[in-house]
Amino acid sequence: MRGVMDIPDELAPAAAAVGNALERVESTFAAALETDHKPVADLCSHVERYRGKMLRPVLAIASGLATHPNAELVFATGEPDALVNSEMVTVGAVVEMVHMATLVHDDILDEADVRRRGATVNNLHGNEPAVILGDYLIATAYHLCSTLPDRAYSLAVGRASQVVCAGELLQLHHREDWTLDEDRYFAIIEGKTGALTAVACELGARAAGAGDDARAALAQYGQTLGNAFQIQDDLLDLAGTEERVGKSVGKDLEKGKLTLPLIHHLRTANADQRARSLAWLDGASHGGDGEADLRAAIQGTGSIDYARETAVRLVTRAKGELDVLPNTPARGLLGRLADAVTDRAY
Amino acid sequence: MRGVMDIPDELAPAAAAVGNALERVESTFAAALETDHKPVADLCSHVERYRGKMLRPVLAIASGLATHPNAELVFATGEPDALVNSEMVTVGAVVEMVHMATLVHDDILDEADVRRRGATVNNLHGNEPAVILGDYLIATAYHLCSTLPDRAYSLAVGRASQVVCAGELLQLHHREDWTLDEDRYFAIIEGKTGALTAVACELGARAAGAGDDARAALAQYGQTLGNAFQIQDDLLDLAGTEERVGKSVGKDLEKGKLTLPLIHHLRTANADQRARSLAWLDGASHGGDGEADLRAAIQGTGSIDYARETAVRLVTRAKGELDVLPNTPARGLLGRLADAVTDRAY
Repeated sequence: MRGVMDIPDELAPAAAAVGNALERVESTFAAALETDHKPVADLCSHVERYRGKMLRPVLAIASGLATHPNAELVFATGEPDALVNSEMVTVGAVVEMVHMATLVHDDILDEADVRRRGATVNNLHGNEPAVILGDYLIATAYHLCSTLPDRAYSLAVGRASQVVCAGELLQLHHREDWTLDEDRYFAIIEGKTGALTAVACELGARAAGAGDDARAALAQYGQTLGNAFQIQDDLLDLAGTEERVGKSVGKDLEKGKLTLPLIHHLRTANADQRARSLAWLDGASHGGDGEADLRAAIQGTGSIDYARETAVRLVTRAKGELDVLPNTPARGLLGRLADAVTDRAY
Repeated sequence: MRGVMDIPDELAPAAAAVGNALERVESTFAAALETDHKPVADLCSHVERYRGKMLRPVLAIASGLATHPNAELVFATGEPDALVNSEMVTVGAVVEMVHMATLVHDDILDEADVRRRGATVNNLHGNEPAVILGDYLIATAYHLCSTLPDRAYSLAVGRASQVVCAGELLQLHHREDWTLDEDRYFAIIEGKTGALTAVACELGARAAGAGDDARAALAQYGQTLGNAFQIQDDLLDLAGTEERVGKSVGKDLEKGKLTLPLIHHLRTANADQRARSLAWLDGASHGGDGEADLRAAIQGTGSIDYARETAVRLVTRAKGELDVLPNTPARGLLGRLADAVTDRAY
């Protein structure tokens, strides 16, 4: 974890326990995908290379550590690794696999060619194996989730997946709908991004044996953090470079996807500028200097700053949810993870 | 059910109970898909029109009726509707929804424009909503399955879905692989079609409280019937018409999909004919009279008859699995359903 973000010394015990647990998550993930069919195994091993920050398993494990009934005692006197049980590890593998499935299908939607600095499945093999590979990952995730000893896990993962898809369908429905307002934008991102980070945190806490209040707080923390994460993703697509971000950028404007900076820009630009921006957005050809002009115009209405500040405000709110938890390095780590959402440039 | 196939009088009590249960399956199906998001609801209601024979729910309910510990007694003296419990109904809705999801994704793979005499989602709205709508249906199916009181249901549905996808991935891998042999063909169809009919029958029996032996027999019946069903589908794609079948036909040859008649033809044709057939299959353009010539050649090597006889043999084997069950109208109906697989022209 230290490679990915800066961890203060007092949080190191929690970060080390998460790091050790992630190795177990990776083993569980790989074992669930094992198959005798070589063509299937080859596709899966390609997708395993998509694995990057492992944000969702990190959230699941850290949530479990922070809400475990023995957290305070163990962090004060014992070995935090002992707080990690196999249910927490399985939850981490499940949420990562659901996420991976959505990446494979999103790349088809986005017609993306690059993911984690490698070719996407759709680019390499066409849309058809990408559709079925995503389905295979979802099926494997549900099967793995069903091995957990309580159907509450499967119910929560099934429900979250429904909400993720509903968010994506709403987004597709409102593509090139330049009248989309912030409320509906939030309805979309709360689904497509927030629902899965929420369930990662909530089920990590459930696996640790947390009580109802702690579980609810973690669900809210995960939901709010996920929303902030999506806004940061919007910003990176608009202002980042493929080299830094590690995946195709500039796709949102190209695909007519409404992002928070664009929504703010269209709401606040003067009539002339708004007409110019809409003309470019409606244009059949999106080439030439128009795109650079639009980016500059979005900057000019302060819309990048507005989106950035919104994300920071959500991060602060997410951290506030953690106040109900005992003060442990794991709680500190969850706070640091929230801060990292708006710090990241990748 | 009487509209779909010819039911002898002595099986009528079982057919009536299945018909009544199907109405409950439809309500459960619709309730699970209810959503406040209008664009999502609109897409779902389009897909509900795909519903045709409801073969998988019929299999689930009939399997439950035939394996219920009280089946003999109730069919002799009571009201068969009483044998249908809510778990059987839920199983029926789950397997139908998983099936519907695979139809939506298959239509993307097949670039099909017509399904059940209506436009496909991909034809109407593009591939992107079709990908996510399929995912939404899968998520809803898993959520519904997780409401059942035993995680054995979710484990079985998760595993069957994995096997279905693995079969589809194998099929894509072997597309235009004219060396594919019958063993590998069966590995593909046992996954992509047989796995879901097997789990429909097995879980219908589980929901009815059947013992291990009856459950295993029903799983085998469903698997074998599903394999026969797929071979019949291959035959209809080759020899049927869109008007009768109600969906796009002739897609298999066009997409380089190896079917049993084609595999048999390539194995048994003389060298000259084989070279001519391969030349057409390898040709960049699949237009002209070549396709009609190939169809005639496949007929000429007796490959249509061979595939038909293979399907009939599988149907006989499927019916043999039912011998362990008590002699009830429900068992008779399962036998009749197996016969109908090779009788059907749609």
